[in-house]
Amino acid sequence: MSNVSRKTQENFQETLQQIERLLQRHRLIEGMVHKQSMAKHDLVEQLVHKQNLAELSLRLDRLHPADIAKVLEALPRADRLTVWELVRAERDGEILLEVSDAVRESLLEGMDSGEIIAAAGTLDADDLADLAPDLPEHVLSEVMGALEPAERAQVQSALSYRDDEVGSVMDFDMVTIRADVSLAAVLRYLRRFAALPENTDKLFVVDRERTLLGVLSLEKLLLNPPRRQVGEVMARDVVSFSPDNRVDDAVNAFDRYDLVSAPVLDANRRVIARLTVDDMLDAVREDSESLSLAGLKDEDLFSSIWKSAQNRWPWLAVNICTAFLASRVIGAFEATIAHLVALATLMPIVSGIGGNTGTQTITLIIRGLALGHITPGNSARLIVKELGIALLNGVVWGGVLGLIAFALYGQWALGAVMMAAMVLNLQVAALVGILVPITMQKLGRDPAYGSSVLLTAMTDSMGFFIFLGLATVFLT
Amino acid sequence: MSNVSRKTQENFQETLQQIERLLQRHRLIEGMVHKQSMAKHDLVEQLVHKQNLAELSLRLDRLHPADIAKVLEALPRADRLTVWELVRAERDGEILLEVSDAVRESLLEGMDSGEIIAAAGTLDADDLADLAPDLPEHVLSEVMGALEPAERAQVQSALSYRDDEVGSVMDFDMVTIRADVSLAAVLRYLRRFAALPENTDKLFVVDRERTLLGVLSLEKLLLNPPRRQVGEVMARDVVSFSPDNRVDDAVNAFDRYDLVSAPVLDANRRVIARLTVDDMLDAVREDSESLSLAGLKDEDLFSSIWKSAQNRWPWLAVNICTAFLASRVIGAFEATIAHLVALATLMPIVSGIGGNTGTQTITLIIRGLALGHITPGNSARLIVKELGIALLNGVVWGGVLGLIAFALYGQWALGAVMMAAMVLNLQVAALVGILVPITMQKLGRDPAYGSSVLLTAMTDSMGFFIFLGLATVFLT
Repeated sequence: MSNVSRKTQENFQETLQQIERLLQRHRLIEGMVHKQSMAKHDLVEQLVHKQNLAELSLRLDRLHPADIAKVLEALPRADRLTVWELVRAERDGEILLEVSDAVRESLLEGMDSGEIIAAAGTLDADDLADLAPDLPEHVLSEVMGALEPAERAQVQSALSYRDDEVGSVMDFDMVTIRADVSLAAVLRYLRRFAALPENTDKLFVVDRERTLLGVLSLEKLLLNPPRRQVGEVMARDVVSFSPDNRVDDAVNAFDRYDLVSAPVLDANRRVIARLTVDDMLDAVREDSESLSLAGLKDEDLFSSIWKSAQNRWPWLAVNICTAFLASRVIGAFEATIAHLVALATLMPIVSGIGGNTGTQTITLIIRGLALGHITPGNSARLIVKELGIALLNGVVWGGVLGLIAFALYGQWALGAVMMAAMVLNLQVAALVGILVPITMQKLGRDPAYGSSVLLTAMTDSMGFFIFLGLATVFLT
Repeated sequence: MSNVSRKTQENFQETLQQIERLLQRHRLIEGMVHKQSMAKHDLVEQLVHKQNLAELSLRLDRLHPADIAKVLEALPRADRLTVWELVRAERDGEILLEVSDAVRESLLEGMDSGEIIAAAGTLDADDLADLAPDLPEHVLSEVMGALEPAERAQVQSALSYRDDEVGSVMDFDMVTIRADVSLAAVLRYLRRFAALPENTDKLFVVDRERTLLGVLSLEKLLLNPPRRQVGEVMARDVVSFSPDNRVDDAVNAFDRYDLVSAPVLDANRRVIARLTVDDMLDAVREDSESLSLAGLKDEDLFSSIWKSAQNRWPWLAVNICTAFLASRVIGAFEATIAHLVALATLMPIVSGIGGNTGTQTITLIIRGLALGHITPGNSARLIVKELGIALLNGVVWGGVLGLIAFALYGQWALGAVMMAAMVLNLQVAALVGILVPITMQKLGRDPAYGSSVLLTAMTDSMGFFIFLGLATVFLT
């Protein structure tokens, strides 16, 4: 906790601005040096340059690794690499853990194998497992080779779980004790440690086979008379996890039971690792629904245009196909439109409002799924409710729009078609808005991912089809 | 921690299903009783009825308040109230804290003043402050009147802060100690407590005026020899907050520095309260970007159709205005469309892809703002980058669509207009996608709220205007 400034937030913005100023000066001097012929290097300039970098380096040394990570995220590529080179090598590992995947990649690109191996060497098994997927093959095998067998097994075990499984975020550092000793003995035992693992709020009570018998919170340890036995004081009812539980569920449990740490058990109830609240907070913050609604993976703010485009194209391509499909739906009614051009001006309203109401439904459903409030038992009721709202909206707003259409074009029939199309398309939007995320969840997928693109594809195509179809039947 | 089952997640779904079954049986029996004349009540049925409710009640007693809250969220209105009546009164307070605002409202509606006052009486000052905004005026004043003066002052202080300020989530329960005592004395002092406040990982070291001198982590307390003084062992560099700091910034700090608790200080650095990680986790989970993107407040999944509609209408009304505007833009070009109906089929592609690429930009920017990666220093670069991506996308995908338009309608000029319109509209989308959230943030508002509606309003209207405008100039 040392080195952490008091007014965290304001100070951070200030620090970032100071670093940006130093970097600006750095670029300026570099530019000047570059313009002159290399032989004519001004000694004074070189000195200023060095001083500037030294000041920058000093400032970085005083920052918490998490703050350096944040600075790196906020800097454009070139500046980022300048700062990265100035960071002391022994802090590289910690910082690599803190940055986002996208920025980590950009930092690793600039390091040679030796540097990466050195950085990885400073990390615990669970942190190493976080980093491993981003490391080049030969670097990873070298790092793994240098580990103790026990630690290597831990890394391999952590690597064998998917990103959304508890096994991928658990850590292996923990304190276990026996049930048949006194609290005084536990206190003596703890004093032999130089530090406890982060977020240690409880000790795990195990038998010879490491089977979990209970947990002893530090609170119980501190509040009870030292002569009492661990077994008398420990809690036996413990929230525990298995490594193949979903991270989302673990987050839910941490939130519900206000946990700081919890044991991870294997099939025989043996303690193999630990989950901590800081990893849960990370998991929640990384899991951004809105990014996945837009069909994006996390993106480095300053990656190259080309790289960013690659992140965005898959989903854009899908969108272009669906837009083309909607366009073909309209194309099928060209004769109707030629007959009554007003239809072309009104049709985007039907599709647009459909998309909007559907998005409202879909976001509420995705949230309900994430919080575990939607069950097989209650989804039928939800459908009824959403269809009801859609009917209400369709009649009210469709009615208003029908009146406007009549006012603009003086045709009662056009107004009626407008209203009918709104009612029907909002029903489509409500159904799709519920069924798409629920189905995705049932198939074991992220219910947010791409839901909204599928939704607008339906509300656009169906909106045009319903409106122009009704118009063709009743107006021509 | 007692009463918490082991396999949390699976068990919860099972429990919920069992409760749903019991409720179903309850409804069935009630229905039968209702159908028969009241006089003919079958004694056996009454017995079954009572047994059923007793079983339900027993099952609820065994659940953690957070789990009961989750059950209540997942149940339709009528069932929810049945369950709520069966919950033992002394647990009402805790449960009211755990449910979402929308559900809390529905539960309070069914309680009389006396019940609410009793429930509120079981709560701490900070929890009471959470509940207060939802309580009827006269109930609140009665509850406040029954408090000790010190506690009343705490509730009032917590109520004076906005929802997004640290003051609204801080709690007042904490342990403070002096610097000039030995660790042994601290250990003796702690043993006088029946329990420590939740999430206590450190004690606050203060002087006579409650000025913060440092913090003593339980870890340091346990690991150091008891004869040492608090002042020698405590950490002096402490992450602390002020009650008017933003909750978002506090979440960032908790995440960055892996905090479990932190002191809240007044202007004179006196300790007034405490922030804990469980409240941070709550705050992150409640703050759903995607809900606010869709312009929604949190909604009870089973509120009435009428209430839900009220939650959704403000935004829908805005959307209808913008859709109407876009429709009028098209209306201005009716002559052009009458001349070339193909334009009506192609125009939604231009507006749709614009909306989609803009949404990608906006979600990345909102995320960057939330994580603090976007600063005044780097936003100019972001604009350049996004405009670059938009240009690339416009040329590539606009080109593809131009070719398709040519293939469909055999006019080179139409294809060229299509491509040009795509390039221009994607530039609009990129600019709006960056500037809207950044401006909202500068104005001190939630950058997500409504951003996406504003964006599609622009990409729709501008998309139609650019495409039809170019067509009018070059194709007619």
